[in-house]
Amino acid sequence: MNINQPAVPPLSPDLIAKFRAVVGERQALTAAEDVAPYVTEERNLFHGRTPLVLRPGSTAEVAAICKLASAHGIALVPQGGNTGLVGGQTPHNGEVVVSLKRLDRIREVDTASNTMTCEAGVVLQVAQQKAAEVDRLFPLSLGAEGSCTIGGNLSTNAGGTAALAYGVAREMALGLEVVLADGRVLNALSKLKKDNTGYDLRNLFIGAEGTLGIITAATLKLFPKPRAIETAFVGLQSPAQALKLLSIAQAEAAGSLTSFELMAEIALDFSVKHGIGVRDPLSERHPWYVLMELSSPREDARATLEAILEKGLEDGIVDDAVLADSLSQRQAFWKLRDEMSAAQKPEGGSIKHDISVPVAAVPEFIAEANAAVVKLIAGARPVPFGHLGDGNLHYNVSQPVGGDTADFMARWHEVNAVVFEIVLRMGGSISAEHGIGVLKRDELPEVKDKTAIELMRAFKALLDPLGIMNPGKVL
Amino acid sequence: MNINQPAVPPLSPDLIAKFRAVVGERQALTAAEDVAPYVTEERNLFHGRTPLVLRPGSTAEVAAICKLASAHGIALVPQGGNTGLVGGQTPHNGEVVVSLKRLDRIREVDTASNTMTCEAGVVLQVAQQKAAEVDRLFPLSLGAEGSCTIGGNLSTNAGGTAALAYGVAREMALGLEVVLADGRVLNALSKLKKDNTGYDLRNLFIGAEGTLGIITAATLKLFPKPRAIETAFVGLQSPAQALKLLSIAQAEAAGSLTSFELMAEIALDFSVKHGIGVRDPLSERHPWYVLMELSSPREDARATLEAILEKGLEDGIVDDAVLADSLSQRQAFWKLRDEMSAAQKPEGGSIKHDISVPVAAVPEFIAEANAAVVKLIAGARPVPFGHLGDGNLHYNVSQPVGGDTADFMARWHEVNAVVFEIVLRMGGSISAEHGIGVLKRDELPEVKDKTAIELMRAFKALLDPLGIMNPGKVL
Repeated sequence: MNINQPAVPPLSPDLIAKFRAVVGERQALTAAEDVAPYVTEERNLFHGRTPLVLRPGSTAEVAAICKLASAHGIALVPQGGNTGLVGGQTPHNGEVVVSLKRLDRIREVDTASNTMTCEAGVVLQVAQQKAAEVDRLFPLSLGAEGSCTIGGNLSTNAGGTAALAYGVAREMALGLEVVLADGRVLNALSKLKKDNTGYDLRNLFIGAEGTLGIITAATLKLFPKPRAIETAFVGLQSPAQALKLLSIAQAEAAGSLTSFELMAEIALDFSVKHGIGVRDPLSERHPWYVLMELSSPREDARATLEAILEKGLEDGIVDDAVLADSLSQRQAFWKLRDEMSAAQKPEGGSIKHDISVPVAAVPEFIAEANAAVVKLIAGARPVPFGHLGDGNLHYNVSQPVGGDTADFMARWHEVNAVVFEIVLRMGGSISAEHGIGVLKRDELPEVKDKTAIELMRAFKALLDPLGIMNPGKVL
Repeated sequence: MNINQPAVPPLSPDLIAKFRAVVGERQALTAAEDVAPYVTEERNLFHGRTPLVLRPGSTAEVAAICKLASAHGIALVPQGGNTGLVGGQTPHNGEVVVSLKRLDRIREVDTASNTMTCEAGVVLQVAQQKAAEVDRLFPLSLGAEGSCTIGGNLSTNAGGTAALAYGVAREMALGLEVVLADGRVLNALSKLKKDNTGYDLRNLFIGAEGTLGIITAATLKLFPKPRAIETAFVGLQSPAQALKLLSIAQAEAAGSLTSFELMAEIALDFSVKHGIGVRDPLSERHPWYVLMELSSPREDARATLEAILEKGLEDGIVDDAVLADSLSQRQAFWKLRDEMSAAQKPEGGSIKHDISVPVAAVPEFIAEANAAVVKLIAGARPVPFGHLGDGNLHYNVSQPVGGDTADFMARWHEVNAVVFEIVLRMGGSISAEHGIGVLKRDELPEVKDKTAIELMRAFKALLDPLGIMNPGKVL
């Protein structure tokens, strides 16, 4: 993908030496082969370039880098696990990359306060494991958890499959440490659940995709570790029926309902067809599916889940359902869901959306978007699936069978336009989880409240007057 | 209380006429008796003055007021239910009061999306009742709920007794409508649970005490209405034991644990002695008490609560406990707790704090603060009680028995200083729930991170360059 951004002037050898002096010889990468992993990403969609990758080992080093960058007007791109989907972590125009991966200390775990203080480079899965070791849960969970980092999770306000019960990344952070563009350090690593001493600064940096400052550490909330996790795979007729089932499940399980994933039959088709070892848990096909999970500190989750499904059957909402009887069966249900993104690839081109609408509007959105997309491109195959409980769908569209992939992919923005028009009309968001990065940057001013855009620009100018923090991203 | 602030120039009759034209003759109050309820507050601690109280009836009118105020440099004090405890809602220096009480429409209730859109002037209790009518819970709950308003709750980021499970007011708002100082309207009334399209603006206005803009409406989260609520009153030896009980309760009940209130024996003493119809539920006295409540969508709360208490007894943590057997008994437990603030008054002067520390630090905080306060003023009687699960204590100090009240109250700031030193050393907050207002404004720069203060001042200057939005509050 070509990113239209102002060119960045080349770094002088003198300046490279100055940056190198901050992090040390071995942590300043300039050789093409060393730099390569930082300028491209897994899907090979974005390709950047950089004269220099810096790998600071402390907050003080990050601050020194920013100070130096400010003094010389050098643009920086902060990077965590490099798993972002919107090109936010890529140096598209020769910016210096600041990799936070060496800031990987878990500074403290406090089981009485239920907090964990992690540096930005701690891998999400490591944080999850650390919590589990002390009999706690850190609930953020997403596909990239084996390599994405806490800093990236917060900078992109990651969502994932447990947001229904525990909220998005924003809601899991009690405090932050942030290095500002000029090298000042905001020390707000609070462990407090209540603190009304002045403006909330934390949330401005969370989800800002590194354009307002670099998050170097965070105090995260821990939760009690559930003792019982019960999972059901349900076949039903429509998103409207799924919505009714969601309502029953919330009334019965409240905060114990930790996942409620909706999937169209075609999404299941692709997953079963292309995912290795993926099987359909139900004996017959259904137009729609729900993967529902309850997590409870007590042994009551099974009874609650059964009660939900019974009510769903009685009310004619549920056509068929199976409960996982073992951990491996539970994992098999999730594998079916988790393979859905990858399973679209063998079906040819896929135009992807990560949208949200008010939960109540999901059925109407799917109906309208499906009709509009097929009207635009005859034979196009909508593959909707996602987090119904959050109103968040990965509304992807696969190319017509046998069609030309390049022709189809060339219509990316046309398809976007059709889908986004419906999203906006319903009061939705064109980026529910993944952020703006460069991928949706140019659409943002069209979809966002005018005053909101003005405020965003004003905050950017205030916090990054030189425009050196991840330039060209978000705004 | 005398508030040291720059004097505000008198309003010309011409300008009063212009403001009057915006809201209409009847909604622009100037007569002393009409204005009186807006310039003082219930406890009679703060006394303000104003030439004009405006009662706009729409967001457009609020916007017109701000535009006019900006054009002429007129200072505004937004006001909701006028129940704030830190003088944030009082026109200390002749500012124009903008009362939001007529913005009292509930614009929408969406039970499928679990959202409710309220205007700023909706009384909290009305919002709670509206939610209950549609079989939902709006969980924000605090002493002033019969008169405080949603706009005020959000502007002060109210806490209350259910924050343990549901979070503070901030966490209950999905979207906001805000009028900026210059009259621009930020339309961000989102119903979305996930929206990563740019910077989070919402949270900057929540908790800003009206100094950055005027919140005119909010989209609030609704929750499933619990079917079973079970409450226990527990006697135990120490805050450390209470902390152990909290840990057990969280492990057993997770998100179903909706309240966990810690109370010193003296707080119970005062409440029983001075509260009308307040009784001690336990047969013997204990040094410390816990009021614990579980809320569940299913009928399992009683069994869970019993399991928690049994484990507490087995482990030697709980000395005695009684479960509420009826709604009236439950209300009696809560009355004991709710009367604690008022019951301090008959005991003479009371120097109050609303502090938080990391949950783990609460026992140490109480021990140190008690010792320090008594060392400072022999015979002073610390009355600690509050939300242990949030690390939030109303750490109040009553005067020595028989001492002079005025002498004692004159040492307010000395006592504050001693308590705040311990709070800060433990990484705590000097205002957990109540905000800064004018009461703690002068302390703020001393207790807050330097960079945080710099950012706060910069945001204030950016959003309110003329300094007309609730001047002299917070900063």
